Amino acid sequence: MAKMQNRDRGDPVAGNGLLSRRVFLEGALVAGAASTAGAASAEPLAVQPWMKTPGAGFVGYGEPSRFENKVVRFIPPLPNPATQGVGVARTPLHLLDGIITPSGLHFERSHSGIPDIDPDQHKLVIHGLVRRPLVFTLEALHRYPMHSRIAFIECAGNSLALSTPQAQPLGMAAIHGNFSCSEWTGVKLSTLLDEAGVEPSARWLIAEGADSPAMSRSIPLAKAMDDALLCLYQNGERVRPSNGYPVRLLLPGFEGNMNVKWLRRLKLSADPAMTKDETSKYTILLKDEKAWQFVFPMEVKSVITRPSPGLTLRGPGFYEISGQAWSGNGSIRQVDVSADGGRSWAPAALQGPILPKAPVRFRAAWQWNGGSAVLQSRATDDTGMVQPTRAQFGDERGLRGVYHYNAIASWRIDEKGEASNVYA
Amino acid sequence: MAKMQNRDRGDPVAGNGLLSRRVFLEGALVAGAASTAGAASAEPLAVQPWMKTPGAGFVGYGEPSRFENKVVRFIPPLPNPATQGVGVARTPLHLLDGIITPSGLHFERSHSGIPDIDPDQHKLVIHGLVRRPLVFTLEALHRYPMHSRIAFIECAGNSLALSTPQAQPLGMAAIHGNFSCSEWTGVKLSTLLDEAGVEPSARWLIAEGADSPAMSRSIPLAKAMDDALLCLYQNGERVRPSNGYPVRLLLPGFEGNMNVKWLRRLKLSADPAMTKDETSKYTILLKDEKAWQFVFPMEVKSVITRPSPGLTLRGPGFYEISGQAWSGNGSIRQVDVSADGGRSWAPAALQGPILPKAPVRFRAAWQWNGGSAVLQSRATDDTGMVQPTRAQFGDERGLRGVYHYNAIASWRIDEKGEASNVYA
Repeated sequence: MAKMQNRDRGDPVAGNGLLSRRVFLEGALVAGAASTAGAASAEPLAVQPWMKTPGAGFVGYGEPSRFENKVVRFIPPLPNPATQGVGVARTPLHLLDGIITPSGLHFERSHSGIPDIDPDQHKLVIHGLVRRPLVFTLEALHRYPMHSRIAFIECAGNSLALSTPQAQPLGMAAIHGNFSCSEWTGVKLSTLLDEAGVEPSARWLIAEGADSPAMSRSIPLAKAMDDALLCLYQNGERVRPSNGYPVRLLLPGFEGNMNVKWLRRLKLSADPAMTKDETSKYTILLKDEKAWQFVFPMEVKSVITRPSPGLTLRGPGFYEISGQAWSGNGSIRQVDVSADGGRSWAPAALQGPILPKAPVRFRAAWQWNGGSAVLQSRATDDTGMVQPTRAQFGDERGLRGVYHYNAIASWRIDEKGEASNVYA
Repeated sequence: MAKMQNRDRGDPVAGNGLLSRRVFLEGALVAGAASTAGAASAEPLAVQPWMKTPGAGFVGYGEPSRFENKVVRFIPPLPNPATQGVGVARTPLHLLDGIITPSGLHFERSHSGIPDIDPDQHKLVIHGLVRRPLVFTLEALHRYPMHSRIAFIECAGNSLALSTPQAQPLGMAAIHGNFSCSEWTGVKLSTLLDEAGVEPSARWLIAEGADSPAMSRSIPLAKAMDDALLCLYQNGERVRPSNGYPVRLLLPGFEGNMNVKWLRRLKLSADPAMTKDETSKYTILLKDEKAWQFVFPMEVKSVITRPSPGLTLRGPGFYEISGQAWSGNGSIRQVDVSADGGRSWAPAALQGPILPKAPVRFRAAWQWNGGSAVLQSRATDDTGMVQPTRAQFGDERGLRGVYHYNAIASWRIDEKGEASNVYA
């Protein structure tokens, strides 16, 4: 059982055991999770088998430990077994820490599976309202100046499971796992558009993928000229096939599907193209039967990744509450945490660097007394937007919108230390 | 062939074709690497086979494209085939971009291979000059507050190949590939030392690994209390076996071997332990036959990753010169680039965020005229330390020191566009 030795260093700052951030800042916490070693003998530990024999040799491309083979993406059952590759594979955020998602676990939303693209055959065209239509091979794209940034991608439908009338018994990946973050590197789209020469009448461009459904979205020219990136690298290496190899569009902060994978075509136009992917999908049905179209940035949001379902608390005592916060509109300014279902709040520590349109890892100190608790996090971004409660979200938009659900989420901790998804 | 349309936007800033950084900042560059698409037809590209059929389905843990199967670590031939796992696997920095190294390509230096550690059996002890010796299971370590940071690790012997009297025909990975960067997450060592209660007489601690040679290094207590981290996560997921699973010590900026992998023991002491790994190795033999011991931080350094050997330039024209710069003593303040072997220099653009003891990606614009060129980069950190020339480095220390070689490196570009390792 955990004990606090310096309670004055861990003053309560909100209800139900939330403690001062100073326990992090001053490193003065004594969590008591360790056992004492008895006598300070020089060799108090067992000599294990792996200490007696040479280890494994080198391999060209490494893999995780075999003891971590359950750390995999969550793949919901396919609604139709005939349509493999139509659906999602979700990031197990509860098993990760930091902000970078290893590329093998980056979430994947595919409309008809992952194309097996030969990069030597792949080309990208820029045409439409340009003075000089251009075709790029991968080799040509590599000739241009590159740019790197850390950015999240979130599926427009992430956290949709919280729209149901009753809270479902689902965990972190199933609810919130359509969210990941990489360091992306590529060519600024503005560089190539400058070269092509955009006609004054152009206001939009359509981005089309080389997957069989030709995923296509209309993008405002202003975004393309601002921070859009044609990504060739993801977390240092070439973009993964499930994330758009050999080239994907990154529109920092915009809903995931607009970051078109396997990018083959950019057509400049005066008006949006009204593709199937922006009319039959990715519009938000409101309470009054109207719908929003072209809602691009993912709004300010946060989720607690630990504790969360499946990560059972082992008895009362100290725990760190940790999660990620992000905003498609800018940087995270503050994250507040509650252990009593939103009655009282305390600011969490934010792990730097705090970057625009990138996740921030937040951490808060919590002394669990063994009773029932409801954990929540609430993010505020630097535009002043605050993550709404579920009730506020429902009052404004209703709960039939499918996309862009960003309300405060709740994990209930029961007396056994088990976490579950609740509405609170 | 590449052409510049707006030469006034790409003014020469140093000899042999180095151009103004404004071409990056203003996005006004026209590299001309693309081909024009002819008529702006709606469908100027071939329909490829992968556009006509559904793609592959979902997998739990993804992998790179099969077309990237040559992007692997460089494993030099083992001096003794009987000792597999004694040596290095080096990061192919020339095939990567950004600053994050994908964990499968993080360099690995092992003194007797990779132990196959069962995390449920692994324990970490803190003992010696402490009031309360402690033993931690992995589960116990997970109870403590976590901290994340992006940090490089560089082997003390990285770039050793540049110590030979004649420049060897080696490439990026072979020379400089004992360098990688991850987002590391774990428990601050200071938190655990506070809990154990460090005796006033303690000045050092010895860190010991659970590999069969029991890799052991003495660490100043001041560093342990400053920014040392017991890492459980690397790039979001659990630390890879080749990088110390289930727990490795991170001493940001310190030479690689001190970041002890498979950490099992930390013993507080008044004096350094004088282990085999700090007497028979990892001391720096100087010109005057004396040797430096306990040289911890890796000094300011930079390398150009592109162009570099194997990445042949395809004809005169625009190229981006890009690489990484870092310092174990702080943050990178400036990187200068030369295309004429150090006769003239121009500042490179630094890609943010600029973090202490983390790499910075630098980029410079270069118009190659098709003639011979010698490319160099020179980093300056925020302590004012400037990367020395090879001659300066040799004058100060000599070239028999084996470790901590950080002099300016040179790639010669010949008239065929091929890059090679030279001394210049």
